[in-house]
Amino acid sequence: MILYDLAGADEDLRFSPYCWRTRLALAHKGLGCDTRPWRFTDEDDVVRSGQGLVPVVVDGDEVVHDSWRIACHLEDRYPDRPSLFGGERGRAHALFVNHWYEHTIRPLLPRMLVLAVLGLVHERDRDYFRDSRERRFGGRVLEDVAIPLEEGRRMLGQALAPVREVLRSQAWLGGGGPSYVDHIAFGGLQQGRVLGVELLTDDDAVLRDWRERMLDAYGGVARGARVVARSSTLHGSRDGNAPRSGRETGGAV
Amino acid sequence: MILYDLAGADEDLRFSPYCWRTRLALAHKGLGCDTRPWRFTDEDDVVRSGQGLVPVVVDGDEVVHDSWRIACHLEDRYPDRPSLFGGERGRAHALFVNHWYEHTIRPLLPRMLVLAVLGLVHERDRDYFRDSRERRFGGRVLEDVAIPLEEGRRMLGQALAPVREVLRSQAWLGGGGPSYVDHIAFGGLQQGRVLGVELLTDDDAVLRDWRERMLDAYGGVARGARVVARSSTLHGSRDGNAPRSGRETGGAV
Repeated sequence: MILYDLAGADEDLRFSPYCWRTRLALAHKGLGCDTRPWRFTDEDDVVRSGQGLVPVVVDGDEVVHDSWRIACHLEDRYPDRPSLFGGERGRAHALFVNHWYEHTIRPLLPRMLVLAVLGLVHERDRDYFRDSRERRFGGRVLEDVAIPLEEGRRMLGQALAPVREVLRSQAWLGGGGPSYVDHIAFGGLQQGRVLGVELLTDDDAVLRDWRERMLDAYGGVARGARVVARSSTLHGSRDGNAPRSGRETGGAV
Repeated sequence: MILYDLAGADEDLRFSPYCWRTRLALAHKGLGCDTRPWRFTDEDDVVRSGQGLVPVVVDGDEVVHDSWRIACHLEDRYPDRPSLFGGERGRAHALFVNHWYEHTIRPLLPRMLVLAVLGLVHERDRDYFRDSRERRFGGRVLEDVAIPLEEGRRMLGQALAPVREVLRSQAWLGGGGPSYVDHIAFGGLQQGRVLGVELLTDDDAVLRDWRERMLDAYGGVARGARVVARSSTLHGSRDGNAPRSGRETGGAV
């Protein structure tokens, strides 16, 4: 199993929220994988075949792209391993959350993180990244699109309201244990963490505690990720918990 | 099984979106019920016990209130009947949709329908309804809170984006058949229909087609609801489908 995973100038810096969904889905299934760094302008034939976005998983003869399609592939191909969805209904309901993220979190998160990403991508990716993102934002320059962090945190906190409400009555979005819905919602928070940007407000205990649980899940695969040098706000959590094993590297943020 | 169901001046006019969730959940389970009309200012001891909102279900010795708690009660007490959630994961994921509705649709729909409801509630409920709703809206008079229909349709259409996206790839929010997630999302559209207000834009084929399927589901329990006299916009659907069995009554809208 090979996972093509978006990387920065530092090839161990993996900051794509969608690739993190796939990493966690593979961990949930107990499937090992060889994660290969991929940059925006890489011309790898496998990744480019049919489309140009990661995550892409190569599972034997099959090449699967798109995080949702990969999750469905893993669930259908490995039905005897722990379920990502919990059956047909659970999968149908998870698809709602997948689309909710696209319409609610996706328009917001890149505006909070776009300058951090710009500072960390490989030099040869920088023009591509700026051009493609400015086109996506209707031709506005990235510096104008970026939302100040404090304002972004407030907006994100509101957008995450359904996640927070669910987590008031159960430990995971999947109920008694994590499901792919946890992976969907966590991927964005992990992107912030890897990039050294604290996305949650200090008083958001419910989401912070769940993030800690997600970081510990599956043997700590998310906690073990390389992260850029901490900003002063990154680990200001109430309980003083800091990543236990996060390897750090001087970042360009 | 008794369901206390919000009613208008016409006691057959049942317009609460939350009561519709429960009606459909009962139909999904194949459970008959005696639906009793209840008005905002009714002092019924059963309904008032502990709280003052419908739906309330009396199932033998048990009195259960709150639409989500009722759905869970039905699922747990009648596990051999068709499942509302499809297991633990499906229930956990449905809870997300339940909270999504509260944070996304609930702040909007009452502003589209509040004047229609005001015109249809029992005369003795009118002062209570106005006072309680104006308090809910921070002391603003209802006429100022109400959103013009066209603007409301546009806003609701955007808010329902995740529902629409899911329904592009599957017939029901529950997948191959309706689940409680369908009931959650449909309840609001059924409220509009009962009140004679078309909530969807003319070109919203995906949501309109799904609404038709929901109206037909479970032997047409939702289609059989009494609705107020049609406004000119209520049934302007592309395909000219009109309710087949909707009993109509002169309404006050």
